[in-house]
Amino acid sequence: MIGAGYWGPNLVRNFQGSPTFHLRALCDLDLARAERLLGRYSTVQATDDFATVLANPEIHAVALATPAGTHAPLATAALRAGKHVLVEKPLAATVEEGRALIAEADDRGLTLMCDHTYCYTPAVTRIREMLHGGDLGDVHYIDSVRINLGLVQKDVDVMWDLAPHDLSILDSVLPPGVHPVAVSAHGADPIGAGQSCVAYITLQLNTGAIAHVHVNWLSPVKVRTTIVGGSKRTLVWDDLNPSQRIAVYDRGVDVATPEELATEERRDILVSYRSGDMVAPAIPEREALRTMVDEFARAIRTGTPALTDGRSGLRVLEILQAASHSLANGGSTVALEVGE
Amino acid sequence: MIGAGYWGPNLVRNFQGSPTFHLRALCDLDLARAERLLGRYSTVQATDDFATVLANPEIHAVALATPAGTHAPLATAALRAGKHVLVEKPLAATVEEGRALIAEADDRGLTLMCDHTYCYTPAVTRIREMLHGGDLGDVHYIDSVRINLGLVQKDVDVMWDLAPHDLSILDSVLPPGVHPVAVSAHGADPIGAGQSCVAYITLQLNTGAIAHVHVNWLSPVKVRTTIVGGSKRTLVWDDLNPSQRIAVYDRGVDVATPEELATEERRDILVSYRSGDMVAPAIPEREALRTMVDEFARAIRTGTPALTDGRSGLRVLEILQAASHSLANGGSTVALEVGE
Amino acid sequence: MIGAGYWGPNLVRNFQGSPTFHLRALCDLDLARAERLLGRYSTVQATDDFATVLANPEIHAVALATPAGTHAPLATAALRAGKHVLVEKPLAATVEEGRALIAEADDRGLTLMCDHTYCYTPAVTRIREMLHGGDLGDVHYIDSVRINLGLVQKDVDVMWDLAPHDLSILDSVLPPGVHPVAVSAHGADPIGAGQSCVAYITLQLNTGAIAHVHVNWLSPVKVRTTIVGGSKRTLVWDDLNPSQRIAVYDRGVDVATPEELATEERRDILVSYRSGDMVAPAIPEREALRTMVDEFARAIRTGTPALTDGRSGLRVLEILQAASHSLANGGSTVALEVGE
Amino acid sequence: MIGAGYWGPNLVRNFQGSPTFHLRALCDLDLARAERLLGRYSTVQATDDFATVLANPEIHAVALATPAGTHAPLATAALRAGKHVLVEKPLAATVEEGRALIAEADDRGLTLMCDHTYCYTPAVTRIREMLHGGDLGDVHYIDSVRINLGLVQKDVDVMWDLAPHDLSILDSVLPPGVHPVAVSAHGADPIGAGQSCVAYITLQLNTGAIAHVHVNWLSPVKVRTTIVGGSKRTLVWDDLNPSQRIAVYDRGVDVATPEELATEERRDILVSYRSGDMVAPAIPEREALRTMVDEFARAIRTGTPALTDGRSGLRVLEILQAASHSLANGGSTVALEVGE
Repeated sequence: MIGAGYWGPNLVRNFQGSPTFHLRALCDLDLARAERLLGRYSTVQATDDFATVLANPEIHAVALATPAGTHAPLATAALRAGKHVLVEKPLAATVEEGRALIAEADDRGLTLMCDHTYCYTPAVTRIREMLHGGDLGDVHYIDSVRINLGLVQKDVDVMWDLAPHDLSILDSVLPPGVHPVAVSAHGADPIGAGQSCVAYITLQLNTGAIAHVHVNWLSPVKVRTTIVGGSKRTLVWDDLNPSQRIAVYDRGVDVATPEELATEERRDILVSYRSGDMVAPAIPEREALRTMVDEFARAIRTGTPALTDGRSGLRVLEILQAASHSLANGGSTVALEVGE
Repeated sequence: MIGAGYWGPNLVRNFQGSPTFHLRALCDLDLARAERLLGRYSTVQATDDFATVLANPEIHAVALATPAGTHAPLATAALRAGKHVLVEKPLAATVEEGRALIAEADDRGLTLMCDHTYCYTPAVTRIREMLHGGDLGDVHYIDSVRINLGLVQKDVDVMWDLAPHDLSILDSVLPPGVHPVAVSAHGADPIGAGQSCVAYITLQLNTGAIAHVHVNWLSPVKVRTTIVGGSKRTLVWDDLNPSQRIAVYDRGVDVATPEELATEERRDILVSYRSGDMVAPAIPEREALRTMVDEFARAIRTGTPALTDGRSGLRVLEILQAASHSLANGGSTVALEVGE
Repeated sequence: MIGAGYWGPNLVRNFQGSPTFHLRALCDLDLARAERLLGRYSTVQATDDFATVLANPEIHAVALATPAGTHAPLATAALRAGKHVLVEKPLAATVEEGRALIAEADDRGLTLMCDHTYCYTPAVTRIREMLHGGDLGDVHYIDSVRINLGLVQKDVDVMWDLAPHDLSILDSVLPPGVHPVAVSAHGADPIGAGQSCVAYITLQLNTGAIAHVHVNWLSPVKVRTTIVGGSKRTLVWDDLNPSQRIAVYDRGVDVATPEELATEERRDILVSYRSGDMVAPAIPEREALRTMVDEFARAIRTGTPALTDGRSGLRVLEILQAASHSLANGGSTVALEVGE
Repeated sequence: MIGAGYWGPNLVRNFQGSPTFHLRALCDLDLARAERLLGRYSTVQATDDFATVLANPEIHAVALATPAGTHAPLATAALRAGKHVLVEKPLAATVEEGRALIAEADDRGLTLMCDHTYCYTPAVTRIREMLHGGDLGDVHYIDSVRINLGLVQKDVDVMWDLAPHDLSILDSVLPPGVHPVAVSAHGADPIGAGQSCVAYITLQLNTGAIAHVHVNWLSPVKVRTTIVGGSKRTLVWDDLNPSQRIAVYDRGVDVATPEELATEERRDILVSYRSGDMVAPAIPEREALRTMVDEFARAIRTGTPALTDGRSGLRVLEILQAASHSLANGGSTVALEVGE
């Protein structure tokens, strides 16, 4: 485990709780910070020497919870030392770096995985199942809001800080054949922080559907709500409502069929309305990080890609980079390269 | 009163409840509809003859609750007949029509008012007072969401149907000197309705602040929430929470002062956080339409402009028309002419 | 219509909206109040002369929205004049008065109905259907909370003011064969109002189930929530949540079967837990008073008892009177006479 | 630390996180359970030998998270071995046992503390400060609801399982001179569990105020709300709403003053209504158990009683025992001995 900062304690706890992994060392440039994180009752070794970690043949995998700018060099070194690698989101600081990491891991037959934690929540798992299984019908729109009084950062804007969550969720739930083709982003820095603190990202999907992300560091109220509008049903995920995180509405607008239109002369019989029940499915609570750690183990053991492998990390990175271009150009639409 | 459709009953009830107005006639092309609206216990006259209404010298004012495309001809006729005129939102179908109506009313010294009902809610009144009075500080961002399973219409898209509410509210609460300078809009028509059913409008303000409106006809959940982020405080208006419509948070991010920055060598002491109380002010419930009707009476009597006079209706119309241009051009930014 | 006070306007509006009734007169001792309620556009007659109303052969039915103490004399006079009678809750001031009214109506073959408005809400209708249809299984407990900043009254306590709602709902939803057998009540008058402003009523049902009602005039927050715990499912009715008034939980505790117990030696396998979905059924919004007015018409026309006929009004009265006895005796349990 | 069951992990984590305590051993009759709780990275000793723990002179304090029936013998042994003792709620199985424990600790000058965790939440701390400081005025009523799908237990009913929380909170927040004088309890066991699964406890306070507790193991919805009605303000604590746990309403009913009454002839000018703002104070999040552990340390070091010392545990026990008597006697009122 490399990095004893903000996210480190959660990873340490979950690697310790995993029956598959055996946590050997926690490494941080600031040794005291690593020691503090482990506390005085732990048998895990604290160290500030990354090279020794890489040189240890008993260590097979490395998890990086370090600043985004360090992902590429540290992960490259780890892959070259023959370690499987888990990196915090975003995969890397640039699309190029991300591509190089994927190539490095592919060449060596090692697992490269990105910790898109939200993709492992029971809620997102359920959304993916419903969208892939057709329960919601075709995607009509996805609207995601993630706002809170956040830590205004000096080197990344609110898009790079928060939107990886929404974009990786989107990447993980969209059914095969549906993907974004263009991005535009608008933002503001009303407090003079030096980068956007409020941002809106609009994604056109190849199907004509729309996805929209609102991220905001300045909101005193915390909102984490995603609406997935489908042709059959609409799902609302409110991550702050533990007693009802997911609600599926059998309620919506249907386009009239040609037969219906033919039998009516008036064109205002364009749509019909469904007014069905709402179902909030029972979803077991399970810590997402535990599932993520299990998936890392599974990917290593089977040699098959993780759900959030390097390639999914790269797709998220491509959108973020395009969104930054759009933002720098007054919201102009930026096309995305389709697939790989 | 002209128009016995969807909105008619509300206006009829409020004009009847007003001590100032005396409702003489309800006019609709469909006489039976007008009679049905009045019911069998009413002494108000139902008619389908607009000309007679205009010719009646005892009628001093006319309220139009008819389709947007009819506003210009009907209002023009009424003004030319010497009547004061109230029109439903939007003021007219085009900016040109709107300008002509204003000129017509100005020339004749008559009151022209637009029924931007929301501007007369106690909540919006409070927001206006707080923004104009400086209680929230400078506007940082305004985020407005108005989504619901709406009536998909055949001749207007969701922007023209719903955004007049948000844009007129914005127009009414922004303090003097703060106004939008550019618009861009993104939308989708995932059900094949022929016009956008989901839309996002982004407004740049002249101060560098940002305003954003999300309107959606396809959402099975109803949301009507506006966040007004200010430099001192942030206000959240949830119109669907009658027990706490407005919440004012003394919580936010402050930029560090030059002095604070000077005493610190690290640039990451960029901001500081305030973590104060939230106050939900006691706001008396009062029907907005009643206040609107009172304002119409006041404007007529004093000869001074109503809060939502023709000019405010025109400003809203200008933004809508610019948003439509943006939407038709893939979200490109459209500059707004700066006020008058 | 007799009584132009607090509840009068609602009844006037709904009788006017009914296609069955023709509202002839609004009678109040305070003629000006009756005139004010009708307004200046109405053709309905205002009067302060009850005798004339009773003498009018064109008037077939009378609705009383007057203080509880006047119900018995006014309703008796109306019945003796051959009118069908609707009275506001509670049916009368005492059980004896209530019994006499029922006998009077029975003797004359006239409809006597109590306006237990809540029993006609779509929500209560649904609860009744589910309980009578067995969807919830056996009733385990019913917990009802009705608190608000209420009008502290000088002649009735909070139980008599608010609990008729909960008790009439209970009476209307309990399936055949299930009924309360004993009552106890606790209350307090912490502000020195002269009667209880906070009260708790506990009802034992003949099945061993329990029902509990919390009424409170002093709460700054408004709560109107009823939980109906059943052996199969549990229903939660939140009357202040229009987007989800009713939620049905397929979640609960089941007693282990003898077989399950036999296969286990440990007695702590006493229960098992179900963790199913929650369903919020689509319930059409309809004004309860309109349905109540329709039911009054139906009862008169068919000569069959209304859902909330005099007898149901009497059952509610019996519980209220017993609760008052309990309250006066420090919460002692008071047995209820079973049935009629 | 004695007991590696349900609550054990929380105490272990917080003792380990405390800078004051050094956790030496975790003792459980089931050694494997203790080992499992500690995990494979811990240096803390697992043991099943209570006697050795007591004999260890380096161990100065013992925390008991064992079934209620074992509290008296284990705590007595620990006190006799010279250890300070922390016990989970309830203090003991009977009032007599509780008294004996207090005497034992007093005689030896040792700290005896009860882990009434909720009393250490920031929310309850704030309530206590406001009630003791007079911000809410006199207590008018306290209404506490704690319902959930709970673990139906074989040896304690829902009152003994859940109400200790509410009663200890009550004990900790009531200002000096205000205390319960009588209890009555009603309950039901609709599932045939062998003890009450739903219960209502009513407490009369010496001031004429009322307190009421609703505990329920069978509710599929989780509610943890306490309303503290005061003569000046009313506080609502919703423990499940992390963004607004406490709301203070400056809204309520005031009794008219004699002067106001004198100037009015009508007695219905009995009360007046205040309609002020609601304030949700900023309350820092802090884990209650951490504060509890700190208080245990403070009490040991200073030799002064903990906030939730043995005596407060005893007062809670007295109410529970009286409530059980009431429940067994059909809800009859049971007087409480005032103080000590």
